Amino acid sequence: MKAIRPALLLAALLLALPASAADGSRPSYADDRAEIENLQARYMFALDFKDADTYAATFAEDGSLDFGLGEIKGRQAIHDLIAKMRADWEAKLAADTSGVRPFAGRHSISNVVLKIDGDRATGRAYWFHMSNESPDRAKSQLNAFGHYEDELVRVHGQWLFKKRKICNELVPAWVGPTKNPAW
Amino acid sequence: MKAIRPALLLAALLLALPASAADGSRPSYADDRAEIENLQARYMFALDFKDADTYAATFAEDGSLDFGLGEIKGRQAIHDLIAKMRADWEAKLAADTSGVRPFAGRHSISNVVLKIDGDRATGRAYWFHMSNESPDRAKSQLNAFGHYEDELVRVHGQWLFKKRKICNELVPAWVGPTKNPAW
Amino acid sequence: MKAIRPALLLAALLLALPASAADGSRPSYADDRAEIENLQARYMFALDFKDADTYAATFAEDGSLDFGLGEIKGRQAIHDLIAKMRADWEAKLAADTSGVRPFAGRHSISNVVLKIDGDRATGRAYWFHMSNESPDRAKSQLNAFGHYEDELVRVHGQWLFKKRKICNELVPAWVGPTKNPAW
Repeated sequence: MKAIRPALLLAALLLALPASAADGSRPSYADDRAEIENLQARYMFALDFKDADTYAATFAEDGSLDFGLGEIKGRQAIHDLIAKMRADWEAKLAADTSGVRPFAGRHSISNVVLKIDGDRATGRAYWFHMSNESPDRAKSQLNAFGHYEDELVRVHGQWLFKKRKICNELVPAWVGPTKNPAW
Repeated sequence: MKAIRPALLLAALLLALPASAADGSRPSYADDRAEIENLQARYMFALDFKDADTYAATFAEDGSLDFGLGEIKGRQAIHDLIAKMRADWEAKLAADTSGVRPFAGRHSISNVVLKIDGDRATGRAYWFHMSNESPDRAKSQLNAFGHYEDELVRVHGQWLFKKRKICNELVPAWVGPTKNPAW
Repeated sequence: MKAIRPALLLAALLLALPASAADGSRPSYADDRAEIENLQARYMFALDFKDADTYAATFAEDGSLDFGLGEIKGRQAIHDLIAKMRADWEAKLAADTSGVRPFAGRHSISNVVLKIDGDRATGRAYWFHMSNESPDRAKSQLNAFGHYEDELVRVHGQWLFKKRKICNELVPAWVGPTKNPAW
């Protein structure tokens, strides 16, 4: 009976370990992928709804956004980019006298390829954009598409974009490679 | 030799525990997200193929579906909605003398944002719909898009929709907010 | 003190076990789904970028690809199919004197439904294809859509396609069922 006590203690310690380390202690590929997929999705909502705070919060403090026309560096500059998009959009709405509701634009992500190495990850994914910019807002169009080349980093247990490069097949300056950028 | 036996027993018990609780005992964010993503995907197949049984089975017994024109409450009423869609479709097909095969419509989900709190979850996601309703069925169009605002609940270890609200940017009565509905 | 030693040994063994078996020893549904989603995404990049090596590597050695016009059997034959696509595309490019850059075509996967049973899995998912084959490469179109019916197998810890059947709603010979192919 005496012998069982240390074993019980060990058992208790083992039981106290997270089953699959959602808290970051020993995350699996599935744990990391789930967190990164959520980040990728939050990024899209933040972008389309021009939510500068949430958008910027998906990047590391020294993160960068490279979208073909140049590279924006640092969370603050990234925040300001989206805040300007929001302000411009609101100004346009305020000046609009058509009586038609604003059209919506939506980016989706698909085909998320992720390689994870400890607190670093490399991602590739497709994106595409649709909108209902028809006069009656009742028709939808596919507007553009391309892919992302991402570097991610885990900071204080949270996955963030270290660098997001956007390729857009519709714009000459943003066109991506013709060789597989994934693996 | 005697001392090892209780320890072995404990070890056997520990080994019998699921590595990451796919059975619901201690699910991680990844476990929950995987189950919910599968639910979201099954919902889409059930909707497009007008499979009332499977569609209704993705909702909790007291679940509700709010699609802009009103809220359908309870699994039975939700079942009946899809069963009617199927019956109407079959009647239309039976009456069709064109000789052209039925066109297909397909909803996809993307950008799944999920916050999980024990047996409750809150979700946001995009959806979009395409079809080949051209006379020769050889052209495809993007028809509509919007987003979901979901409340989910785990019942007997299975994630289900507690409430799904559908926003559709093409239809005035269904249009969503212009502020980020996610986080 | 003597009694604790076997218990410590067992504890060490237990601690050495992966938290959620990303290495394949006791994978959860989330583990398997994460690996298969990555496979599905890598398949798409390999297809669109005509990367025969990576494409073929997503299939089991005796895997098959059934795409409506017939079934291609074995990794080598699947490799050769994509290698020919690449060669044909390069020949077409070489012969092109328009001065316009090549258009891009992109397949996306969505609505991934997965049932996993040990080292076997059954999958259903939607796919759709878009391109910018307009003369100026500045407009995008949705070209086609359908669904996949997949059988997957884990070989040496890696998920691979055992059989992928492609249904395409735009082409009479590839059209899928009108009853829910998922569950």
